[in-house]
Parts: sequence; structure tokens; C-alpha cells
Amino acid sequence: MSVTRAGEFGLIARVTARLGTGQATLLGPGDDAAVVHAPDARVVASTDVLVDGRHFRRDWASAVDVGHRAAAANLADIAAMGAVPTALLVALCMPPDLEAQWAEELADGLGAEAAKVGASVVGGDMSSSPTLTIAVTALGDLGGRDPVVRSGARAGDIVALAGRLGYAAAGYTVLSRGFRTPKVLVEAYRRPEVPYGAGPQAARLGATAMIDISDGLIADLGHVAAASRVGIDLLGSAFEIPAQMRDAAHALGVDPQTWVLGGGDDHAIAATFPEDLPLPSGWRRVGHVVHGAGVTVDGRAYKGPAGWDHFR
Amino acid sequence: MSVTRAGEFGLIARVTARLGTGQATLLGPGDDAAVVHAPDARVVASTDVLVDGRHFRRDWASAVDVGHRAAAANLADIAAMGAVPTALLVALCMPPDLEAQWAEELADGLGAEAAKVGASVVGGDMSSSPTLTIAVTALGDLGGRDPVVRSGARAGDIVALAGRLGYAAAGYTVLSRGFRTPKVLVEAYRRPEVPYGAGPQAARLGATAMIDISDGLIADLGHVAAASRVGIDLLGSAFEIPAQMRDAAHALGVDPQTWVLGGGDDHAIAATFPEDLPLPSGWRRVGHVVHGAGVTVDGRAYKGPAGWDHFR
Repeated sequence: MSVTRAGEFGLIARVTARLGTGQATLLGPGDDAAVVHAPDARVVASTDVLVDGRHFRRDWASAVDVGHRAAAANLADIAAMGAVPTALLVALCMPPDLEAQWAEELADGLGAEAAKVGASVVGGDMSSSPTLTIAVTALGDLGGRDPVVRSGARAGDIVALAGRLGYAAAGYTVLSRGFRTPKVLVEAYRRPEVPYGAGPQAARLGATAMIDISDGLIADLGHVAAASRVGIDLLGSAFEIPAQMRDAAHALGVDPQTWVLGGGDDHAIAATFPEDLPLPSGWRRVGHVVHGAGVTVDGRAYKGPAGWDHFR
Repeated sequence: MSVTRAGEFGLIARVTARLGTGQATLLGPGDDAAVVHAPDARVVASTDVLVDGRHFRRDWASAVDVGHRAAAANLADIAAMGAVPTALLVALCMPPDLEAQWAEELADGLGAEAAKVGASVVGGDMSSSPTLTIAVTALGDLGGRDPVVRSGARAGDIVALAGRLGYAAAGYTVLSRGFRTPKVLVEAYRRPEVPYGAGPQAARLGATAMIDISDGLIADLGHVAAASRVGIDLLGSAFEIPAQMRDAAHALGVDPQTWVLGGGDDHAIAATFPEDLPLPSGWRRVGHVVHGAGVTVDGRAYKGPAGWDHFR
């Protein structure tokens, strides 16, 4: 059955019936607006949009996968402020001939990814559109902590990373060349494994700056460097290429460093910490903050593609 | 200059430079997420999406107008819960050849409409897309009040209305027939005049149920009736047709009641109140809540088009 046949209100009923209820939900879908708990009298909020053919392809990922990715992109932004996600709102634009089941399975993926952090989908909107588009807003709670912004890095800080780099970009390249394996790379592209807990953990530890790596490590650390008016020097040796990624890169004729340093979509979290701070498990040191500007690797400019401009 | 030429980060800089800062903004655009004040430890949140050619037409409304409309649709949802809007987040999908100026003027409209209630745009996302799409999320504060939901109407309550009905629908019909006047109708379609303050006012007065009229009065009161398991009977005499609307309807061969009872987009607010409650200025009585189901006019079923399914 198409979404047109299901009708707007029918489809909303079918989708909301599949959604769970997070701990912070005071009033969920079905009214003019939702009401969400904001325990410390502040709410963290971020929006990310995914466009069919640009951020995802329906022949490369299932609706459930796309739901996971759409939720992860937003939940990672909340975590990278040092906050715990509480709720998602979803605006879904669908071609009239889209199967209603696709929308339902998208909701399954959104709900399952949100449930990983105790959150849920609390509201949304649906419309017909020639272009399948998913705009997600995530809300979160800082638990009394200061938000960890991009502008707080200081020369002498260490740069640390939680989560994986390059897997999703490698999976994207694999899929774009018409392959379906290695599975670990393709799956990483379809459903990122985001270290959500690392964000609040870093905030509690005294992180001075933090960012979600969505456009690529060099590009995103470039935002931290610019906002903090510092330079960042990465240790080339900190980015060992996993064997499967190296093999895939060799087979495809790609330099795997471009995946690791320039690829987005894994939603790793990078943070800067005072130099003397011991890093907890899950975080690894990848560089340090210096006087100056821009991002270098072992003191030298990085020559590969640095990131992603969504208009080019 | 096209949005492609401006580039994602260039365009974000141009747009955010034009946005104001609302009273509730603790951290605005530029980081992974925004931080917004939520004084009573709860946040009200709602999302609405506008699709080019479906919810607006660029030859019928300026970018500033579309910004006003996109913001109004969301801010009205917050008001209809009894809350005061605090912030907007905007996901903007643009064709590569769109003029960057269009996006900037859209931001002007969004910001100006938000400023009417002391709110501002605190964050967003941009992407390229074949279909110009604007997804807006609004946040709001209940000020310690209970949210006024759709399910609280009781038989014996009165039904009251704040704001205009039928103006935007009439303006839409006028424009769709190729006319540009009467100006009052066309302008109402381009920039709805939403009675934002009436929502929190009704909540303070003890409204038992409330809803934003976005799909049409009959359709939206139908949602209240269904959620509250009651019927609603409207007074036909309460919907006097203004002279300009009557003249336009006559000239176009339309029954103006279809605009007033079936037209959306004015974002009037309807609420139910206990019977003995005197209504303050700005609210007018339009019917009452009865035992039963559905919405009637003077006790009879309404035969006109009741509302809008966004897939049909």
C-alpha cells in the first residue's frame, strides 16, 4: 500500500503505533506539540536533514538502516555537547508512490536508535514531496553540566577521539563501486556505531572543546581550531588502518587515509582535554592543540580531501 | 549568486548573520547543537514541514513571506498547547541553482515572525535537494502551566475561537485563479496573523482543550471531538462572512463557508472552556461541546470539504 492510499492520518497512526516512549516523554505524538522533560531548565537542540540520493540511497540501505542513520546523525550532535538525548522529532516528506511499509520501517529504525540512549520519537510531520526527505530534530539534557562548545580548546590541550573513523566512508566507496562486502564497512555506512556515552563522559571529565565528526576529522577539527583560535596537530601514527579497510582500499585503489581523515558519517566524537588528564577507556589520544591555526598531521598540511560541502 | 556558489559554510555564515537572538537563547547557531532556556524543566516541541509547490509557491509569495508562514505554522502549534515559543530550528533543502538571497530573505522572515513572540532561530541544517523544502521545529515554555491537550473537552463546555478563519484559504483561491487582489485575502495567505498570546491566555483561564486550526475548523475540531470522545456543535451564525470575502467568493463562484469552515493556514486557535467562564477580549464563542461524536453546524452534518490530507 502506498502512502497516498494509507492517507496522512492513517499513516501517522500506523507509524506512531510502532514508536516507543522514552523516559523524558511527558506528552508524545498526537497533539499540536509534544512535551519533554528538561530537568536542568535547559534543553539542547539540533537538526539534521537527510535527502534521498544525497545522504542515502534506497538501494544501498533499508528503511530501518536509514532510520538508524537519521537518528544517529542527530543524537551524536547532542552527545557532542556533553548532553544525553531525550527526544526526536521527525519531518518526513515522501513521494506519493512510496510504500507505507517503508515509512513504518523508517520509524522502527529511528525508534531503535533513539532507544539506545533512552530517548524516543515524540512528534513530527508528514507531507507529500517529489523528494524523499527526512529532517530530524534531537533534544537533550545537560544534567547540570556546561555545554562543551567548539571554542574552548587551548594550546597545550590534548586531542582525543572516541569511536571509529573511516568505516562509513569506506563502506560508501565500496557500495558506490557496486560491491556489497566487506560487510563490516558496508554495515558501518548503513548504521553508524556512535559512542553516545562518550560525550557526557568527556564533559564530566573536563573536556575543553568537543565536536561530532560528521564531515570528516580534518574538516571538523578545523571548525574547533577556528572557533578556538588555535591550531591542531594530529599524530599520523594514531590512525592505524584496520586490516580489512587496508585490503578494501588496496582492491579499490584508494588511499585509506582519505577515509580515516576525510570521511564523515561514523559520528565519532573528538574532544580536547587539559594535558595532564588521564583518558578513560573508550578515548584515545590522537594529537594536541598548538598555537597557530588550522589542522596539520605530524606538523605538515594534510593534502587529501578534507570534508564535505553539501552543496557541491 | 547561487547557493552552490556561496557554499554550505558561506551560506550558513550569511544566514546566521541576519538572525536575532531571543530571550531564551543560551547558545545559538554555530556549534553541534543549540542550548535553550526551559525555565519550568519541560520543553514543548513541534515540527512542521513546508514543501515548494505544495505548501507554498515562489511566484505567489516572497522568500520573506514563506519564512513568516513557516515560522507561524510552528509557533502556532506551541501557542495552542498554552505555551510561549522560545526557539526555532530550521532544516533547509535547496535546489543548487537557488539564489543565496532567497535563503537569506527566508531567514529574515523566519526571524521576524519568531521575534513577534520573543523567540529566534537557534540552529538548523542545510542541504542541496531537487525540492525546496523547509522543516521547522519550534520549542516553547509552559511557564508552569499544564499543557492544554486535545482530549480534555467535556460535554457542556463552550467552544471559542481566537483569530481569523477563511482569509488564507480565500487568498489561496484568489491566487490560484490568477488574481492578486483583494489584498487583505492574498496577504493573509502570505503571512498569517496568528493570535499567539491567546494560547497561553486560554491556558491560564482554564481551557479544557485547545488546537491550532491548520487543516480547517471542521477537521481540526474533529480531532478535538475524537480525542475527547465528545461531539461539537457549531453555531452557524457565529461565522459571519466579511464583506470583502463575500464579494471575492461571489466573483469566483465559491461558497465562502468552505473557506471559513474548511480552510486552513490562518492558524486561528480554538479552545473549549467551562460553560460559566466569561471569555476575554480576543476570544469569541462559536459553539458548544455535546455528548456524542463528530462536528455539526446548528445540529446538522457539514457537507463541505472538511480539511486537508497532505497526501491527496
